Amino acid sequence: MGNRMIAGVLVTPLREIDTPGGNVFHAIKASDAGYCGFGEAYFSTAQPGKIKPWKRHNRMTLNLVVPIGKVRFILYDERTDSPSKNMFAEVVLGNPGHYARLTVPPGIWMAFQGVAEQTSWLLNVADLPHDPAEADRKTLNEIPYDWSEIK
Amino acid sequence: MGNRMIAGVLVTPLREIDTPGGNVFHAIKASDAGYCGFGEAYFSTAQPGKIKPWKRHNRMTLNLVVPIGKVRFILYDERTDSPSKNMFAEVVLGNPGHYARLTVPPGIWMAFQGVAEQTSWLLNVADLPHDPAEADRKTLNEIPYDWSEIK
Repeated sequence: MGNRMIAGVLVTPLREIDTPGGNVFHAIKASDAGYCGFGEAYFSTAQPGKIKPWKRHNRMTLNLVVPIGKVRFILYDERTDSPSKNMFAEVVLGNPGHYARLTVPPGIWMAFQGVAEQTSWLLNVADLPHDPAEADRKTLNEIPYDWSEIK
Repeated sequence: MGNRMIAGVLVTPLREIDTPGGNVFHAIKASDAGYCGFGEAYFSTAQPGKIKPWKRHNRMTLNLVVPIGKVRFILYDERTDSPSKNMFAEVVLGNPGHYARLTVPPGIWMAFQGVAEQTSWLLNVADLPHDPAEADRKTLNEIPYDWSEIK
């Protein structure tokens, strides 16, 4: 990931707790930075190499955790009044090795790619329940980005 | 699982949504039966064959989903005023094949065992953040149960 981050986006390292029989992994608490209410929790999966194209939530804040596998998220800021307008950012989350939470505020374009050898799993703890009307979509080519290598 | 269930415990089947590049799996919405507020979401893992011994949450409601692997939950009702007092119940959750949410109200003893060949993953969407003071623990032998075969 680059040194600068898109305004309002957070990457928060998460703890793994050693526990007999199987460890515990934090995801999000109501008191955490980036938490802004509960609407729905759901999983998405990302198959190896596959890219899920651009989607922009206009009201939902995403809180994303990857407990298994590795996912590359590309964010693009098209907000006209943003200090990071037109900026791209790449964030890689995964476990083991990159166990953190990615908070994405409304108004940011995001696409993501599974970059593990097996299926990757993402948990989204969202502040709104799923509502197709609050999201916009674009095909992968409509927002130009060089996906050829992880930065 | 038996035909009767401990009072207040819910098992709710969950949907998997076909999606290009990787499917989506529901976990819990704020409007779902069994949801009673958000305090923390965290993962537990269960190693193959290992049993995590008895724990009773006295204030927390658990909402448990197993996106990967297979977990056998044994519940024991020791609530003095419960219509299912002294009842045991066994619930197996997993994916693929047993994809559902288990809601456990406060006051129920629970122990669980990983019964997949690989590590199993549990998501708990709890109405309270982690607080060791609201939970009681017992060793496996303190509540007698025949763990030798899945009922």
